[in-house]
Amino acid sequence: MDRRRFTSTLVASALLGSLPRPLWGASTARVARIDGARLNRRLLALREFGGTDSGGTHRLGYSEADQAARVSVTQWMRAAGLTPRVDEAGNLIGSRAGTARDLPPLLFGSHIDSVPDGGNYDGNLGTIAAIDVAQALQEQGRTLRHPIEVCVWANEEGGLYGSRAVSGQFAAHELALTTTSGKTVEDGIRFLGGDPARLDRAVRRRGDIAGYFELHIEQGGVLERTNTAVGVVEGIVGIKWWDVTITGMANHAGTTPMDQRRDAMLAAGRFIDLVNRVVRATPGSQVGTVGRLRALPGAPNVIPGTVVCSLELRDLSDAKIDALFTAITRDAAAIAESTGTSFAYQELHINEAAPSDPLMRRVIADAAGALGVSARVMPSGAGHDAQAIAQLGPMGMIFIPSVGGISHSPKEFSTPEHCALGGDILLHAVLAADATLSR
Amino acid sequence: MDRRRFTSTLVASALLGSLPRPLWGASTARVARIDGARLNRRLLALREFGGTDSGGTHRLGYSEADQAARVSVTQWMRAAGLTPRVDEAGNLIGSRAGTARDLPPLLFGSHIDSVPDGGNYDGNLGTIAAIDVAQALQEQGRTLRHPIEVCVWANEEGGLYGSRAVSGQFAAHELALTTTSGKTVEDGIRFLGGDPARLDRAVRRRGDIAGYFELHIEQGGVLERTNTAVGVVEGIVGIKWWDVTITGMANHAGTTPMDQRRDAMLAAGRFIDLVNRVVRATPGSQVGTVGRLRALPGAPNVIPGTVVCSLELRDLSDAKIDALFTAITRDAAAIAESTGTSFAYQELHINEAAPSDPLMRRVIADAAGALGVSARVMPSGAGHDAQAIAQLGPMGMIFIPSVGGISHSPKEFSTPEHCALGGDILLHAVLAADATLSR
Repeated sequence: MDRRRFTSTLVASALLGSLPRPLWGASTARVARIDGARLNRRLLALREFGGTDSGGTHRLGYSEADQAARVSVTQWMRAAGLTPRVDEAGNLIGSRAGTARDLPPLLFGSHIDSVPDGGNYDGNLGTIAAIDVAQALQEQGRTLRHPIEVCVWANEEGGLYGSRAVSGQFAAHELALTTTSGKTVEDGIRFLGGDPARLDRAVRRRGDIAGYFELHIEQGGVLERTNTAVGVVEGIVGIKWWDVTITGMANHAGTTPMDQRRDAMLAAGRFIDLVNRVVRATPGSQVGTVGRLRALPGAPNVIPGTVVCSLELRDLSDAKIDALFTAITRDAAAIAESTGTSFAYQELHINEAAPSDPLMRRVIADAAGALGVSARVMPSGAGHDAQAIAQLGPMGMIFIPSVGGISHSPKEFSTPEHCALGGDILLHAVLAADATLSR
Repeated sequence: MDRRRFTSTLVASALLGSLPRPLWGASTARVARIDGARLNRRLLALREFGGTDSGGTHRLGYSEADQAARVSVTQWMRAAGLTPRVDEAGNLIGSRAGTARDLPPLLFGSHIDSVPDGGNYDGNLGTIAAIDVAQALQEQGRTLRHPIEVCVWANEEGGLYGSRAVSGQFAAHELALTTTSGKTVEDGIRFLGGDPARLDRAVRRRGDIAGYFELHIEQGGVLERTNTAVGVVEGIVGIKWWDVTITGMANHAGTTPMDQRRDAMLAAGRFIDLVNRVVRATPGSQVGTVGRLRALPGAPNVIPGTVVCSLELRDLSDAKIDALFTAITRDAAAIAESTGTSFAYQELHINEAAPSDPLMRRVIADAAGALGVSARVMPSGAGHDAQAIAQLGPMGMIFIPSVGGISHSPKEFSTPEHCALGGDILLHAVLAADATLSR
């Protein structure tokens, strides 16, 4: 090991003077840092498990690559002075005791499973950084008041299975679902060393944790475009999906005059434009997407009689999602009227919005201030384990920039400097939260 | 045979007096008729070959059902005093000599192959009616000046193969194409008794025929809606197809703000509406259809980066089709600009418009007048063998109403009365054309 990396850096007091006073006080004038080089080495090393020729990572939840990667992660946990265990839901958790009596643990972590042919940073960064934070604390001789737990949540990409099990949001019928690895959730949990018959033992209640931090790549382009180093996540957006079925009448494209058509494709075209108009009509960061569309019968010379398309709405406010949907369906009724079609909506999927905790946001923003980097408060448009764990206690989430805003792709990339910075912010935030949280 | 059906009907001269004087003069005060009951019996009998449980007909071109049906059709031709033969392209042609020397033949007919799971009238009506016209002429002791040929064109639904071979529009490479029957065109032609190596012998030149009539169901709802008995086809529309590829950028639907998207689906939605607006912006019977659409990657939570959709335009004027396309592409460029996408057009298919002959239209309209039924001039939005044969001489086409405008479906239906009327109109038109055509 190269001890030169385990240093603290003195930030010029002139710089600190221009920033809001950190919550955890004067002791942080000497700014703690993690070992950024080690963090980046470990990120690279993780590519051994599921790394692809295209330069990305294919490490599906519950797969052999997932299992093999956890062996390395477990070794790194031990090196960081953590005691690893696998809970009943297959989550890998490395814990260390705190100094105070009767305080619940402070959690931080992420996941290491990937989407098919995914990137090298989504989940991996937050996992490795969490271990490096624990290791930095140990190497710098800092023992926190709270017990700490570094969490590697199982099968995030499949649907937050590990974190939802812990927060009690896992439905029994989901055990039988088949995941991208080919295994059912039940077999997958067992494969990772969990006990699907005893999932109740993995469940925690509100108050069982002091708080939870997750560092993650942004997966969008806002930070890069605004030249900002750190995103302070104000919450994880709620998501609703619908299947929209538009019914007209299929007919001969040559013999049916324009004014006699009941063209489901025309109605769909106007609907797609409507969704865009309604979503953009009010200020805010809400998004609306039609990503999938199927037209039947689907021949160039037949007027489509049926179109089924998806509608997805996301916002930090569930009420705003509902209001957008109401506005869309109201205006779609006029499209139905003008095209001789009908619209039916089937709600398929709901993730409720998960706001982050104001104190957790504050310590993240302060960490950016202490490290002299720019930060902005922003929503997370993507889903994360943090939204499940937010049910159990105060949640805070840190973003670093994604180059080109690209994610879920082999081209996913964040600079080594930003990855290391993310680890530093997490370390500062953990220190500040440990000092500040009332319990 | 029931001789009572072979009667002529005297139309009250009061009625005739209110109509334009028929071209073929006073001899038609006694209005000739075909045997409508026999025609409808033969239409039913044809269902023996490829009739489906759903009440329609599945008789693909070059299939066993097609071949078997031709045996019955050949027998009916013989009963009508026609001499049947199969030409090199697999067309079944029943001919009879005329009284005048050196006149080219007058052709009439249609096809008996169907689309998959199609109806009982498309093609069948025109074929049976043509035979019944020949039989009525024979039974009524009328021999025409012109030789007559009743034509059953091979594989119309597959792409006018038989009629295009005769009119010299068949490209050599098409022999290798696989048809819905599973046979290549080459094997299919041979299966029907043609000689694919000698297709040149089937080709006719302009002037080789005196004219061509085809009776057909409308396949649309204009006649029914306007309560009209007969359509006088002013021409068969030209058809152009394009594949339109819209390229934006696929991205995460949660993390990509609305103003940073290059959403190919949004561009497609606006394009679909644009096609409808442009086509309807000018008076006329032109139609435009987007019938097929594929969005990639096609997930509810991913902004589509690519959309490929079809564009089909039809009109009697090829120049109008080109003008519509120019207007569409011009306005689509503005959509591309506003959505950060690009549009590319690949022309896939062209059928040039085929106007009918003024004299042939006139004799059809006169026939409706003589029979005391309503008629209207209208385009054929669908393609027909008549558009190929129009290359060889004057073409006329007769429509009768389709109930509900439905075609290419087991629900395709025309009333027995309208079917018989169509045969009568065809008979009158043939008589008048025989008398009127200069050669």
